[in-house]
Formats: sequence, structure tokens, C-alpha cells
Amino acid sequence: MALNLAKRMAFLKASEIREILKVTEQDGVISFAGGLPAPELFPIKEIEETTRIVLEKMGTKALQYTTTEGYAPLREWIADRMNSRLGTSFDKDNILITHGSQQGLDLSGKVFLDEGDVVLCESPTYLAALNAFKAYNCQFIEIPTDEYGMRMDVLEEVLKKTARVKFIYAIPTFQNPTGKTWNLERRRQLAEISARYNVAVIEDNPYEELRFEGEAYPSVKSFDKTGNVLCAGTFSKIFCPGFRIGWMAGEKELIKKYVLVKQGTDLQCNTIAQMTIAEYLKKYDIDAHIGRIVKVYKQRRDVAVACLEKYFPDGVRFTRPEGGLFTWIELPPHISARDILTRCLEQKIAFVPGGSFFPNEHKENTLRINYSNMPEERIEYGLKIIGQIITQSLS
Amino acid sequence: MALNLAKRMAFLKASEIREILKVTEQDGVISFAGGLPAPELFPIKEIEETTRIVLEKMGTKALQYTTTEGYAPLREWIADRMNSRLGTSFDKDNILITHGSQQGLDLSGKVFLDEGDVVLCESPTYLAALNAFKAYNCQFIEIPTDEYGMRMDVLEEVLKKTARVKFIYAIPTFQNPTGKTWNLERRRQLAEISARYNVAVIEDNPYEELRFEGEAYPSVKSFDKTGNVLCAGTFSKIFCPGFRIGWMAGEKELIKKYVLVKQGTDLQCNTIAQMTIAEYLKKYDIDAHIGRIVKVYKQRRDVAVACLEKYFPDGVRFTRPEGGLFTWIELPPHISARDILTRCLEQKIAFVPGGSFFPNEHKENTLRINYSNMPEERIEYGLKIIGQIITQSLS
Repeated sequence: MALNLAKRMAFLKASEIREILKVTEQDGVISFAGGLPAPELFPIKEIEETTRIVLEKMGTKALQYTTTEGYAPLREWIADRMNSRLGTSFDKDNILITHGSQQGLDLSGKVFLDEGDVVLCESPTYLAALNAFKAYNCQFIEIPTDEYGMRMDVLEEVLKKTARVKFIYAIPTFQNPTGKTWNLERRRQLAEISARYNVAVIEDNPYEELRFEGEAYPSVKSFDKTGNVLCAGTFSKIFCPGFRIGWMAGEKELIKKYVLVKQGTDLQCNTIAQMTIAEYLKKYDIDAHIGRIVKVYKQRRDVAVACLEKYFPDGVRFTRPEGGLFTWIELPPHISARDILTRCLEQKIAFVPGGSFFPNEHKENTLRINYSNMPEERIEYGLKIIGQIITQSLS
Repeated sequence: MALNLAKRMAFLKASEIREILKVTEQDGVISFAGGLPAPELFPIKEIEETTRIVLEKMGTKALQYTTTEGYAPLREWIADRMNSRLGTSFDKDNILITHGSQQGLDLSGKVFLDEGDVVLCESPTYLAALNAFKAYNCQFIEIPTDEYGMRMDVLEEVLKKTARVKFIYAIPTFQNPTGKTWNLERRRQLAEISARYNVAVIEDNPYEELRFEGEAYPSVKSFDKTGNVLCAGTFSKIFCPGFRIGWMAGEKELIKKYVLVKQGTDLQCNTIAQMTIAEYLKKYDIDAHIGRIVKVYKQRRDVAVACLEKYFPDGVRFTRPEGGLFTWIELPPHISARDILTRCLEQKIAFVPGGSFFPNEHKENTLRINYSNMPEERIEYGLKIIGQIITQSLS
């Protein structure tokens, strides 16, 4: 007789991405599926040097338990960086170190969500955020987006008529999965609506420092006068994901609530990882490092966009992202990206069909392409074949 | 206007231990409060060497994302070790790497608990497990313990008359907070009752390898014929806690459910930490290392027990643990350990009052003493003063 599990286990599904990623671990697969940074850009030598310093100077501290809040010098660095970029006036007590920004999403669910509560999100939105929130038995209402970002008129309509909205989840810059960026006005409006309706905003910003061109817009948090906006950040994309170090930033009273739930969740983040990153930030120039990443990803974006124009048939629409890791493709409505994927996998090419990025009404004619993880010639080879398969399916 | 939070935020409290630990970060404090391993025993040089090897040989892999399940060679090592100690026949797919064993408890809550479900536990039990489970809005029923472990007659009575019991949480070896160990018969009975009532057991075993003397009993899992028993394990006590690497072990179908909830929770554990531990286990003799830890902790346990006998007044009862990190003290019923703590803190001596280790009926005349984290002379000095303060409060 099977054990009796929690209700949530009936509707939690394995992330399609993680399942496809397992396929892509085979040799020779060309994968546009993950959100993986380019490993050849990881500062391995510098990390080796930094780890050595941390262990020699502070080894017993680095290997011991620390506080739930996280390593103070790292929290101070994050606060300073956010202050200079966002115009906030944070100190370390505005920052909780999390196990990647993904944990910031899980903790947001724990802090805010009861069964039956409502989360508002962009349509489409980050798949693993849906999974994080869904574990708290919430419902989703998708707010449509246009070329300027989330539709604020629809958002207000929904807020007016919907009880139990706990927060609005948004990725305003180089969104996952679409690669789109909200304009200034929408950012200002979201902060204003959040204040007016007394609803929290979880602003997820993993990609914002990876801008290739164009003007950088202020964060939604920059316009927040009430303290209703919380920011999720991460070192995964600007440094490396293996350490699993991210953060939640916000008003101190709210961050205290996050600290409280993190205590029971996993006590604290990896001590040595936090200290190694803090030492790296002291010793090396992270902006120069980010500059190198941006340069490479821009070239790969350029190749990807050129290939989409060259090899993809008319009637296919796609994003030209100004930064980040992804472009998003919309096929004609009758074409299923899952069918295209099946045929691509036969040729050892992988991507993620877009359907599962929609919490409610899956648009199966969409797909997400990651361009950060492979050299240009493989991007070109892979996109050429995907383009051919789509062309065949249209004829 | 304050934001509307989840119901659980009204009854989650900061862990008293973590709050006291903040006090103990001041210089010169003698602390029996934490569950901290002795940092002077951390194999710092070996970890430095191992990290260097991992970064030089497999740097790009070590700093990249990996699978939710965890690094395969580490999972294989854990499966082999459990097989040789427990008589199980695990392979890597029976093991999920978790962010410390604490995360194993949180994920257990997510896999099993709906609001209003019931968790059965020892009375008293590990405080942070209560916090982990409580976040899923469960209730607790405490099962009393005697010198042989959890009272199985009471457990059965409760199971007969209680609906919605989802699991029994137990720490059968060198229990936290009491330092007590269940006998063989109780272990066998728990597995048998778990099968008969089709209820899961979460067997938490962070201390079992730290045995100073006496016979080692088989794990409850050793007697499990149905697959209802899940084991939480950790490298925190036998290696070092700073890496935050633990595991959940159990039947493959159940572990798959844990993998599913871990995906949304934080994607995966720290990659380089997993690879560093795996490399250490290949290159060095962890049993020799554990032997060194056991030798030191045994001396400290000896000093602690001798001091309790020498300096503590009649009418005070305490455990003589055969291993692990803690002893547990019961004062006469009218004495509050919180009052004793207040007076001890004035003399810069800290411990954890026992009340919060009881989920429902706090017994305030109890306290937990950790003896693993300080040299013998500080243990003696501190316990002498605590003994004096208790003696004064009795007169």
C-alpha cells in the first residue's frame, strides 16, 4: 500500500527543462535547452586562489556553521551594489543570502502563500518559479505582456476583481523565457499599483547585468515607496552557478520573515561558498569579468538572431534580446513545438518547448532558445537544422 | 499598511538556539548552546588540497549547474556506506543530496504534509525539525520516551485513534536533545508498526557514527520491509557543516518525489561542495578522521559527565550519552532553566533551555548541554558555574 502523500504531490510535475537537460548530458548533443552560463568563462584560477586564501586565513570559520542571514561582508557588498545601481539605501540587514535565487522564490512562497491564494505573473513566465510557488497550493492568473512589458491595464482589472492576490511575480529585464525587457513607464506603474493595492512584488533579476546594448532601465524597486517590492538576485549568471549563492533584498521587517522561514528550511547557506565569493569580490574586478561574459554572449546572440533570420521560415516570430540568455520563438498557431522537439532530438538537438512556461493555458506553438552555452558554429549548425525542421512542418 | 502574509508566519518563531548563538558570538562566552562540531578537527589542509584537485581536473563542471539528484559519485559512496552499515541494497538512485539534513526534513514536510496533518515525534525532539514541519501547518503529538526509546505502546494507542498521521519523526541514536539511544527492540518495533499502520518514518541519524563506547544498534531502516522508512543523513558532524551537504535515502519511488520537490525548492545542491567531498572520500580515510573526532568528543563527554556529578546538586538528573554531542539535564520541576540561563548569561555562559524542544507542553525545568565545541578546561569552568547557580536557586 502506497504511503499517503501531501496533496501538492498530485500536481507537481518534473521540470521539463531538467528532464531535457538529462538527455543533453549525452555526448554530441547540441543544446539550446538550459539556461547554462558558458563554463569556459568561469574564473577557475581565481576561484582556486581565493579558496586557498579563505581556507588558510579563515579555515575553521569557513567550514563551520554560520548565521542564517549569511556572511556579513557578502551581504554588505550586495547592499552597496544594489544601492549604487538602484538608488536604494540598503545595509546588510536588507539582504538574506539564499541557495540561489531559486530559493528566494521558494521562501517567497513560504512567507506569503496559503492554499488557494493567487499569484499574478507574466504570460509566459519562468517555469521553475511556477513550480516553486505551486508547492504552496496557490493559483496563478497570467497577465498578458506586450512589447513594453506586463499590461498594467489588465493587471489593475485583475487586482480589482480578485481576492487573495498575495504577490505579483515579474522578471522585468531580459525575461525568462522571452528575453523581453519592460520599459520605464511599466516599471514605475508596477511599483505604484503595488502600493495602491497593497500587494507585494517579487522582482526577479538574474540577468540584468548582462546587457549587450541599449539603455538600462531602473529596477521596479527603484520606484518603490512602500517597501512592497522584494528583489531576488544571484551570482549564478555573473559569476558561476555551482556555488548556489543568491539573495533576497527588501525592507528589513520583511527580510526578517524570510530569515525566519530559511532557518527551518535549511539553517543557512554554504559558509565557504559565501566567503569565497566575498574574497573574490575584494581581490578581483567583477565588472571586468562581467564585461568578458557580456562580450561573448553578445556575439552568440548576434549569431543566433542572424540564424533565425536566415534559416527560419516566414511566419515565425522571435525576440531580439538586448541582453540575457534567451530568445523566444513563436511558430504559427497550428505547429506544436513538442513535435518539432521530437524530430530535433533525433538529430541530437535540444530546446525547451514553450508550453510549460504558461501556468494555465499552454501555448504549444512556442519555444525557448538559450544561446549562452555554446560556441558560435554549434549555434549556427543547430539553428539551421531546427529551422529546416520547422520549414518542413509548415509545408 | 502591512502586507498580508501566509498564516504560518503567525506561529513560526525564531529558533531559540540561533538567537542564543548570536549572543555567543561575543568574545569570551563559554557556550554549551550550539550543536557545533569542534573546528580544530576540520581537515583544512586536506580540503584545500582536494578543492585544488577538483578545480584543476574538473573546474568547469564543478562550477556549473548539475542535476537535482546530486553528484553521482557522492551518491554512490553514500549508498555503499549505508549498505555496509544498514544491510540495505541501495544504489545511487536511492539517494538525494540535500542542503544539510535540515533540508531533508523540510522536503519531508513538503512531500507528506497538508494543513492539519499530524506528525508524531519523541518528547522532547529536535527543535529545528519542529520548525521545518510546522511550516506546513501540521500538528504534533508527542510520544513519551523511556530509557529504551520511544514508548511503542503509547505510539500504537495514538496511531489507533488518530486520523491523518503522515509520519513518525525519530532520532534513535544519541538523540538531540537528550543524548539517549533506543534499544534494538524498539527499533524493530517501530519498523513493524510503520508497516502495520502504513505510516512513514523519518529516521534522522546525524550522530550515529560518533559512538564512544557500547554496542552499535542497527538503524530502524535495517528492519524496514515495506520501504516506509526514510533516512536523513549528513556530512556536518563527521566532516564539516560549512559545506551544507546531507542526504535523504529511501525507496526509489519515494526519493523521486523528494527530487521533484527539491527542483522547485532550490534546483540542486552546491556542485563544487559535492565534488570536493567525493574527492576527499576517495583520497583520504574518513574512518580515521571520524576516529579522531570520536576520541576528542569522548574526552569532552567524560569531563562533562564528571563535572555534572561533581558540581550539580542532588535532585538534578542527566543523561550519560554513549556518543553524539549532547547531554540533557532535568532540574527539579519548580526550577525554570530560562531563569538559570539569564543568570548564566550574566557570567557569559550559555546553554539552551529545554522547553522549546517540546512541541506542545514545554517542560521548562530542562536544558541541553553541548560538549563537542570547547576544550576540557572551559567545559569544566562553565559547568561549575552553571552548577553553582542551580544550587543557589534550590536553596
